[in-house]
Amino acid sequence: MSTTNDKLIIAGREFSSRLMVGTGKYASNEQMVAALEASGAEIITVAVRRVNITDRSKESLLDFIDTKKYTLLPNTAGCYTADDAVRTCRLAREAGMSDMVKLEVLGNEKTLYPDNEELLKAAKILVKDGFTVLPYTSDDPIVCKKLEDIGCAAVMPLGAPIGSGLGIRNPYTIRIIMETVKVPVIVDAGVGTASDAAIAMELGVDGVLMNTGIAGAQNPIAMAEAMNLAVRAGRLAYRAGRIPKKLYATASSPIEGMIE
Amino acid sequence: MSTTNDKLIIAGREFSSRLMVGTGKYASNEQMVAALEASGAEIITVAVRRVNITDRSKESLLDFIDTKKYTLLPNTAGCYTADDAVRTCRLAREAGMSDMVKLEVLGNEKTLYPDNEELLKAAKILVKDGFTVLPYTSDDPIVCKKLEDIGCAAVMPLGAPIGSGLGIRNPYTIRIIMETVKVPVIVDAGVGTASDAAIAMELGVDGVLMNTGIAGAQNPIAMAEAMNLAVRAGRLAYRAGRIPKKLYATASSPIEGMIE
Amino acid sequence: MSTTNDKLIIAGREFSSRLMVGTGKYASNEQMVAALEASGAEIITVAVRRVNITDRSKESLLDFIDTKKYTLLPNTAGCYTADDAVRTCRLAREAGMSDMVKLEVLGNEKTLYPDNEELLKAAKILVKDGFTVLPYTSDDPIVCKKLEDIGCAAVMPLGAPIGSGLGIRNPYTIRIIMETVKVPVIVDAGVGTASDAAIAMELGVDGVLMNTGIAGAQNPIAMAEAMNLAVRAGRLAYRAGRIPKKLYATASSPIEGMIE
Amino acid sequence: MSTTNDKLIIAGREFSSRLMVGTGKYASNEQMVAALEASGAEIITVAVRRVNITDRSKESLLDFIDTKKYTLLPNTAGCYTADDAVRTCRLAREAGMSDMVKLEVLGNEKTLYPDNEELLKAAKILVKDGFTVLPYTSDDPIVCKKLEDIGCAAVMPLGAPIGSGLGIRNPYTIRIIMETVKVPVIVDAGVGTASDAAIAMELGVDGVLMNTGIAGAQNPIAMAEAMNLAVRAGRLAYRAGRIPKKLYATASSPIEGMIE
Repeated sequence: MSTTNDKLIIAGREFSSRLMVGTGKYASNEQMVAALEASGAEIITVAVRRVNITDRSKESLLDFIDTKKYTLLPNTAGCYTADDAVRTCRLAREAGMSDMVKLEVLGNEKTLYPDNEELLKAAKILVKDGFTVLPYTSDDPIVCKKLEDIGCAAVMPLGAPIGSGLGIRNPYTIRIIMETVKVPVIVDAGVGTASDAAIAMELGVDGVLMNTGIAGAQNPIAMAEAMNLAVRAGRLAYRAGRIPKKLYATASSPIEGMIE
Repeated sequence: MSTTNDKLIIAGREFSSRLMVGTGKYASNEQMVAALEASGAEIITVAVRRVNITDRSKESLLDFIDTKKYTLLPNTAGCYTADDAVRTCRLAREAGMSDMVKLEVLGNEKTLYPDNEELLKAAKILVKDGFTVLPYTSDDPIVCKKLEDIGCAAVMPLGAPIGSGLGIRNPYTIRIIMETVKVPVIVDAGVGTASDAAIAMELGVDGVLMNTGIAGAQNPIAMAEAMNLAVRAGRLAYRAGRIPKKLYATASSPIEGMIE
Repeated sequence: MSTTNDKLIIAGREFSSRLMVGTGKYASNEQMVAALEASGAEIITVAVRRVNITDRSKESLLDFIDTKKYTLLPNTAGCYTADDAVRTCRLAREAGMSDMVKLEVLGNEKTLYPDNEELLKAAKILVKDGFTVLPYTSDDPIVCKKLEDIGCAAVMPLGAPIGSGLGIRNPYTIRIIMETVKVPVIVDAGVGTASDAAIAMELGVDGVLMNTGIAGAQNPIAMAEAMNLAVRAGRLAYRAGRIPKKLYATASSPIEGMIE
Repeated sequence: MSTTNDKLIIAGREFSSRLMVGTGKYASNEQMVAALEASGAEIITVAVRRVNITDRSKESLLDFIDTKKYTLLPNTAGCYTADDAVRTCRLAREAGMSDMVKLEVLGNEKTLYPDNEELLKAAKILVKDGFTVLPYTSDDPIVCKKLEDIGCAAVMPLGAPIGSGLGIRNPYTIRIIMETVKVPVIVDAGVGTASDAAIAMELGVDGVLMNTGIAGAQNPIAMAEAMNLAVRAGRLAYRAGRIPKKLYATASSPIEGMIE
């Protein structure tokens, strides 16, 4: 199996890495840069609110990121309404940032769970406005289908709440989403450790996006490398075709999902 | 975090890879060789029964394995009594194979579950006989402690039955074993896919041994590479110190194990 | 602990049973009646589409149900838009059925997953219209909060897709919903066997609604009794205060949710 | 389905309840008596060490238990060798207690995990000595088969360590044990809450034995009632034949155990 042409394609653009990472919560910009490097990610997401868009003479997160090396994906973290998210995307574009955006519309500050009603509104406006929209959403197949129908370039269901580290809590809904949409499915949020990332990829999703799982680890750079390896491991295992689960090797039939 | 001096040490010998692999069930010897290579393993286990010990002029599995590159670990697969296993180890040693052996004494043909009573008997004899004994056992902390007390160089509890692909069915017993013994703990059997290997390593075990998970995959060479990456990912994640699990990022306390 | 005053209260009405059951998919009306009896349920949900509202001279499901004994809860099964669901509720009310309704707006026929965008629209109209609305929704805490704010009398998140028998796939989201809303939380859909119902109740939810889990069992009447017992068992266990999970009894601290 | 003739038969004796309970760790004897009553159990296990066998003029646990109502099952809790356990059983029999005994031989004080090597020795002696032996063991199918071959009247594998409350950690090994032996399988230890008991019974085991799960609950009497209901619920659900697990109701095939 050649892995060299196993590319992730989003909105016509090709990527070799299936791991996307955020830039928040690092102890220092130096640590962040080293972790980005270790992760092997090609797509880096940046909260528009954390970039000094209006006054680029001031220090900005972007000063630390090699924009020739990485594809920057501006995101609308901190937006709680469609209006706010749309405005944020437009500001970013006017300031010269990418028109491929990660759209977040949060439902509340406590859980950072998405507000899908507002998300759908924002997605409609932004797609019409010419943006390439990658929406962060819950693991809701109906919402994912609507986002695809609107014209989003991918769907990004959560594995678990942002920063929770709970992993892929409901692989069943991720499966249903994969049966339901044709655009790439990127698991966004919830990954706490390497095996979570591998599990996501083994489900067959197209990629994984994470931030806290790396930045919040005791050693973020080592964890970034772990995630790099885990995403590749999970993808390869998915493509390699695993053995069936059986009660024991000589059992005549695979186990049906009746026991946990 | 430097990973270069994170060595696995068994009976005073150092290994860089924490993945050990078997040599059975491949479609061809060529496929086996390529999978061994892709796995990055340094320790390769070989069933003594499958080597033409008595007549080395005949074709043997060993003709295909570069014994300068790999540490060969003879195993007693197919033995159902202590006597049989002891005799097999002695034959192997007489034929010039290693005196570091993987000791298997199986309880029945259907499940390939170990017979720990016979295992303990065989381990006692072999240790006295000067062998370095790595015993395949169930995830039973009392048996593991007895094996350590006898003088075994490591313990190798199963994650799930051989060839089942069920993964690490009981991480709790693996944890108790790690609290109970000081010798290396190698999870042996049960791994079905890359995330299983990562989960094992994230528990903090010293290594993983597998055969069917690789050899039985649709593409064994790709799966071998996936396992290679997954074991490294899991080990790195374990050492990097993962974020705690919480219901959501702002929750005041980590989740206790009350929900699954 | 007295269990006699542990009442479920919905919209000011008191119920002794926390199990609600549907009326579809039975082999015969006689079997349905016996299963309802065995379940101990007081609230029975009936698809408005299955009742001959317009011509009550014809045979109707309602002819078989003792409406003095049970509280009938009309539902909008089969509705895929807010308009359709609203119209169905109004028809039911005009025909003399209850104005306490179970509101379903489905997203597609394949998964029967709810369309929460349409659901919110319908709930707004129906609440204004004087209905007591019990909405079937996904396990989405933001949607549940909106439904509460609209004035729904309870929220009914799914445990898993209707008819899937997958159980409570994501107890974490159910927990978050319970932290988020004050109205009763009824797990609706997904229960496949008795332990699923007990698990739901042990999470602290106010009740469980099911249909396929009972009607689709090989022996629906025995399963109805099993569910009756399981809901009571789970509720009692929740109130009795279970022992903490530990690696073993003498471990100094409860297990945090780091292993599955 | 008639449940009246669904009897548990152990060594030719019939029981209506499939729940067996211990007598340790209660706040008072009165609380214990009320919990026994609420549990509906017919078989009550008592540590021989806690009974004043030699001087029955002193207060004894047995003074509080109605021995006409319950079948007393003496157990060897606190024994760490075969000799000790055998001696304890003989003392109990000489003092007039039952010759049906629950045989425990513990491996260490920390985990209370069984020492199966010593257990097998003790079982052999006791069976020859005319005892009806119900051995507490780990979830090891090979040991269970040996115990059956020795002549034990049942096997009692743990669900998880005594007092851990971890539930049935490895339903797969319990299944294998059920395929391997013909004597009754009683899950003994590990049950923490009602759903754990239901899950055990839904696997098809013949009964459940517990102590800490009830005695250690905040309200032991309520928990005893919960366990009573849960064991019956799980048994009924097992016999009623649950619906298959599917990704959604219209999915063409049941789910194989490939995700979780």
